[in-house]
Amino acid sequence: MNGLPERLVECVPNFSEGRRPEVIDELVTTIRGVPQVWVLDVHSDPDHNRSVVTCVGEPEALVEAMYRAIARAAALINLEEHTGEHPRIGATDVVPFVPLRGVTLADCVHLAHRLGQRVGEELGIPVYLYEAAATRPERQNLAHIRRGEYETLKHAIQTDPERAPDFGPPKLGPAGAVAIGARDILIAFNVYLNTDDVRIAQRIARAVRHANGGLRYVKALGMSVKGQAQVSMNLTNYRRTPIFRAVELIRQEAARYGCVITHTELVGLAPLQALLDVAQWYLQLEDTFSPSRVLEVRVAEVVTGQRPLYAQEE
Amino acid sequence: MNGLPERLVECVPNFSEGRRPEVIDELVTTIRGVPQVWVLDVHSDPDHNRSVVTCVGEPEALVEAMYRAIARAAALINLEEHTGEHPRIGATDVVPFVPLRGVTLADCVHLAHRLGQRVGEELGIPVYLYEAAATRPERQNLAHIRRGEYETLKHAIQTDPERAPDFGPPKLGPAGAVAIGARDILIAFNVYLNTDDVRIAQRIARAVRHANGGLRYVKALGMSVKGQAQVSMNLTNYRRTPIFRAVELIRQEAARYGCVITHTELVGLAPLQALLDVAQWYLQLEDTFSPSRVLEVRVAEVVTGQRPLYAQEE
Repeated sequence: MNGLPERLVECVPNFSEGRRPEVIDELVTTIRGVPQVWVLDVHSDPDHNRSVVTCVGEPEALVEAMYRAIARAAALINLEEHTGEHPRIGATDVVPFVPLRGVTLADCVHLAHRLGQRVGEELGIPVYLYEAAATRPERQNLAHIRRGEYETLKHAIQTDPERAPDFGPPKLGPAGAVAIGARDILIAFNVYLNTDDVRIAQRIARAVRHANGGLRYVKALGMSVKGQAQVSMNLTNYRRTPIFRAVELIRQEAARYGCVITHTELVGLAPLQALLDVAQWYLQLEDTFSPSRVLEVRVAEVVTGQRPLYAQEE
Repeated sequence: MNGLPERLVECVPNFSEGRRPEVIDELVTTIRGVPQVWVLDVHSDPDHNRSVVTCVGEPEALVEAMYRAIARAAALINLEEHTGEHPRIGATDVVPFVPLRGVTLADCVHLAHRLGQRVGEELGIPVYLYEAAATRPERQNLAHIRRGEYETLKHAIQTDPERAPDFGPPKLGPAGAVAIGARDILIAFNVYLNTDDVRIAQRIARAVRHANGGLRYVKALGMSVKGQAQVSMNLTNYRRTPIFRAVELIRQEAARYGCVITHTELVGLAPLQALLDVAQWYLQLEDTFSPSRVLEVRVAEVVTGQRPLYAQEE
């Protein structure tokens, strides 16, 4: 009823270019050139020197669009000359497939494997499969694949069997390697502090992230962006570790250093439920509150019989 | 593209019955019986002894549905026997028309006048036109029309020319009178305090409402609901006086009496923008945040070319 394709996958390629608009434009144009693929959002950060492109599309079309974009990025971005705040191993750094509608996470694993094989064999770029698509348990963790970044991997890929790619040659060119994976929806959320001391952001990141004892579904890094300390987070299950809890924990940790939050930033898009959960929590809205209390959602449900695009498990 | 009728009006009739489910069901069924009218939400409150029904529909169909519901309510609800926390003058107490899509506020004024004429002439129920549909400046204010409630109006309507109805006889039967109007979208929002002292809710209501020096687009009353003090608000322009500001002002005023907010309650529905504004404010999200950053909204915009249902001026 609502005009959406029956099968819809999200894909959020991250490219190691956030400073040259003409390069970013060309990558976005390449993706847009494939029918049944739509670009929803482009977030470029010059300090991270990285662009996050949010796309949706029919599964097959999305694999084709990503293949073309990885090929273009390899020609346009040289990791030997790349600097930026964000860890990275390749020109196209990560390509996650996310099930939205009419597809499962297992379907997305299949897409990741298919794209990985093509990229490895036809483009000669080393591919690491990650998260739900990983072929080794330790590669479920992207940080593990990316440890030491491009500069370390360049040598390690040839000498350390543990770092052998899943597809492609065990050798890095100036395009580096690419991590291709499948996962559930993720919210990328940055919190800025009123200090230029990156060490405070790094300490707070350690306090809130799961790896060091923090919240279960938070990954976090402390960075310096435009001279300001930033806690950069990935929230990997926004129902179980909601945005507000992560932000309030950062606020509390920041206070211990005499700091406050100046502003926050959503990278890319967030599901409606995640933002309604924020409104509900701060307003202390009763538990019976739900997306159906949103006028636009309710009109769509009742008048056009539209079913929700996506719902993450609670 | 999105399957919605080209012209869509919202109507939120308030009936003076919140305790007898069979009566509420019959009124809802009456409304649902008219094609091209959809009931989105029913909120019944036994303490208020009142039900708020949120409907949308094609303009003509909605007038017909409201006419039938007013007729049924007049047969089913007797104001001589009605008690409840909420001020009221009739079995069907208020009927506001709200422009949603492809219609203007002036169109809704026209619908209010047409419905009022039919109700007055064919049902013999006195009708007061209010807000944008008012025929006298003082009747823009619903509280002015409803002053003294049914019990006072019963005599005043016959003796005081100032209280002559716009349509129908200057005489109240047990169905009372009905206020029919046109307005922009409104959010009905209740805040509960950890006290049974209704006077505290009444003092807070006076502090936050526009009429007594408070926020520009807030109407508020202090009530006792299930033995708990409640500040019951109407927010008449949620972009200029947003939910979070009203709630935080109540929180601050409550603290002065040693009270806190236990929970809050949205009556009926709220537009998406109003709830996103809440999330944006508490999270300190940068100004560039907009509904297009919501995955479902962005997919609808980009993939199906859907235009927004409704946007209130900022």
